[in-house]
Amino acid sequence: MSPLSLEAARELLLDGLVPPGRVKVKLEEAAGQVLAAAVTAPGPFPPFPRSLVDGYAVGPPGPATGTRVLRGSGTSTGSREAPARAVYRLLGAVPAGRKPDLTLAAGTAAAIFTGARPPAGTVAIVPREMATEVDGYISLTGLPSRSYLEAAGAEVAAGEGVLAAGTPLGPAETGLLAALGIREVTVYRRPRVALAASGSELLDPAAGEAGNAGRGPADASRAGGPGAGTPWIYNSNFYALAAAVGAAGGEVLPLGPLADDLEEQVRAYRAALGEADLLLTTGGAGGGNYDLTAAAFARTGGKMLFTELNNRPARRVIAARWDGKLMLGLPGNPPAALVAYYLLAAPVILALGGKEPLPVAFPARLTRAIDRRRPERAFIWARAKSTAHGWQVMPLPRRPGGIRAAIGANALIDLPPGTTPAAGAEVTVIMV
Amino acid sequence: MSPLSLEAARELLLDGLVPPGRVKVKLEEAAGQVLAAAVTAPGPFPPFPRSLVDGYAVGPPGPATGTRVLRGSGTSTGSREAPARAVYRLLGAVPAGRKPDLTLAAGTAAAIFTGARPPAGTVAIVPREMATEVDGYISLTGLPSRSYLEAAGAEVAAGEGVLAAGTPLGPAETGLLAALGIREVTVYRRPRVALAASGSELLDPAAGEAGNAGRGPADASRAGGPGAGTPWIYNSNFYALAAAVGAAGGEVLPLGPLADDLEEQVRAYRAALGEADLLLTTGGAGGGNYDLTAAAFARTGGKMLFTELNNRPARRVIAARWDGKLMLGLPGNPPAALVAYYLLAAPVILALGGKEPLPVAFPARLTRAIDRRRPERAFIWARAKSTAHGWQVMPLPRRPGGIRAAIGANALIDLPPGTTPAAGAEVTVIMV
Repeated sequence: MSPLSLEAARELLLDGLVPPGRVKVKLEEAAGQVLAAAVTAPGPFPPFPRSLVDGYAVGPPGPATGTRVLRGSGTSTGSREAPARAVYRLLGAVPAGRKPDLTLAAGTAAAIFTGARPPAGTVAIVPREMATEVDGYISLTGLPSRSYLEAAGAEVAAGEGVLAAGTPLGPAETGLLAALGIREVTVYRRPRVALAASGSELLDPAAGEAGNAGRGPADASRAGGPGAGTPWIYNSNFYALAAAVGAAGGEVLPLGPLADDLEEQVRAYRAALGEADLLLTTGGAGGGNYDLTAAAFARTGGKMLFTELNNRPARRVIAARWDGKLMLGLPGNPPAALVAYYLLAAPVILALGGKEPLPVAFPARLTRAIDRRRPERAFIWARAKSTAHGWQVMPLPRRPGGIRAAIGANALIDLPPGTTPAAGAEVTVIMV
Repeated sequence: MSPLSLEAARELLLDGLVPPGRVKVKLEEAAGQVLAAAVTAPGPFPPFPRSLVDGYAVGPPGPATGTRVLRGSGTSTGSREAPARAVYRLLGAVPAGRKPDLTLAAGTAAAIFTGARPPAGTVAIVPREMATEVDGYISLTGLPSRSYLEAAGAEVAAGEGVLAAGTPLGPAETGLLAALGIREVTVYRRPRVALAASGSELLDPAAGEAGNAGRGPADASRAGGPGAGTPWIYNSNFYALAAAVGAAGGEVLPLGPLADDLEEQVRAYRAALGEADLLLTTGGAGGGNYDLTAAAFARTGGKMLFTELNNRPARRVIAARWDGKLMLGLPGNPPAALVAYYLLAAPVILALGGKEPLPVAFPARLTRAIDRRRPERAFIWARAKSTAHGWQVMPLPRRPGGIRAAIGANALIDLPPGTTPAAGAEVTVIMV
């Protein structure tokens, strides 16, 4: 198979991918998840007519005899012709949260507050600043031209569709559902990601020294852990990828480190695919004698999708499909594993969770030149920063080896082959 | 107090704010949190010298008698003067994860694989493609000019500072810590946010119908919940803000809805401030008779910071400081509460968690004109989208009332007073 572009590889992975399941969750646990079924309003919102302001609920105009017409108030002392003012007798006050216990007959009114239910007989709500209250009466020059009385159902009608399937549930959506009295929603369940690392040199740090003696691959005894006298390192990719999978909304099924042993890997992958929606491994993706991932995926029964991309790092990424599930073999080098994760694995996990799969990518200005020319498309760890004048991006300083290459990064620069952009040039950044 | 700008208000809130505590957590639970103490490497990385490639570990050059000089291999049939090739006898292979059980004497070599520990006597690692293997011997034209043998500690020296206090722990940082064998880290503890809502009209949806009869504020019996015949609505702001507080890394201490009753509020706020780092309320922030938040904050003992901003929505936001803790009274209108949350409360929660407090803000092009002129600075719910040509932003369509105003938004447009930018104009967006 010839090297694929990232975009072509991603298309192969995402083709036909749908969320594998749905689950009912309580509203307070739904934030960050995605609705798997449309929601219609079980009742209207607001559920009752309510005042939008602090002011007065006024009844029908009074009969001529019942309405006193006063001369202008203190605020219009200089006016020659003060406008005629309608006067209403105040029957009481209606705060929010109380069932109103009075009825507005002609020529009467009640003080009312934002969110309160107007009493029977209310024909309009008058904001406080449009009325003058004196001695148990209010006077006004007329009713307001816009309504401050919100009808029941004015914002949402009963039975109205309010959120479509596929809607991510953020704070506003969660608040809307709560307002409608909805206590449970159907969301896509978290994708299950089996996370393995192949490499006989790997130890599980969480297993402790004794644990590694028993469960580590290949070698007879691993007690004592890594050190100057041993050939072992900790399985750090597991921790890095578990954090990343969690951030994408996935649930991690840990497989632990696997030896460079085809049969052991095939057994582990078969077992994992029974439960997982996606199998993610690191290491063994190269072309060497002990790089078994491609062989193990094939022997597990996977139909190979690709084994090589036309970019660096993460040139070698092994992808296969198994009974509708995906197997993805990322590089073992930690920053390369993370590059491949963000560009290929995260989109799969996001899509399985019903979320927008593609990373956010946009142009930004380089704060420092990129001098080294690379013959292939390159992804460079970087720090992007928003400013009032747009986005800036700084490639991270190079450090010896790989274990610190991505520390402090929040983005990758997507650098076309053979280019060495100057400081100030526009490059494409991909947020991670 | 005269209306403040958002920036001045935020400065008052963030002034002197520091994370209130630290806690040790297991590495696998640390992702998304912030280091509260610098981390130094307990040992070197890699912990032992290792091969960076698949190839051969070669010993010292053999004595003239022990080294056969062969003529060029099949790839140089046409060459007149094939270069002299050094030859080494292969003693075996050293896969990764094995303690090497052989020693390279002069003129000998061993196959070696990426990540493996070279045997004693190794002077260089030769990549596979630079050597020719025939009949238990390898021949090469010379040693590589760069080293493929990584020394112990080449990436991280024992005792070296690797992560500073204040570093957010993402996947790369978590992986580095795991590689160093670190199993526990000290992070800033989650800020505790007491979340109240004031308003006698509010019911707690989670409390159920019977629960609301007992615990709801002010009215004698609330059984039955909202409906055409009642004056109650569900406390939706609690659910919206709990989701938002969680996303900012805060821990919610629920206070439930509080009646429009000064004494009840003061009692609840005093109790909450004993435990919480921040008190966040909604409702009661206006200037009406039943808008008690400012009075309740003052009566609780808070020193008032501000009560009014020069923007809409969220013109009224009440802020006070109490014994080094903050009290923030947001508007009761749901989308206004969220605007105030993102602009003022989220920065406080992020700062208390040791994170960068200010929201990401940058210019984007409007996809649709904003026609309505507002006399004050306005924050408009919008959807921002990255494209290969930069960021675009679309104001959300206006809907009746407020409960749906922020549905689907991922940003706010920060609109200067009196402006009506055309489609294609650049505006400032704030990501939420």
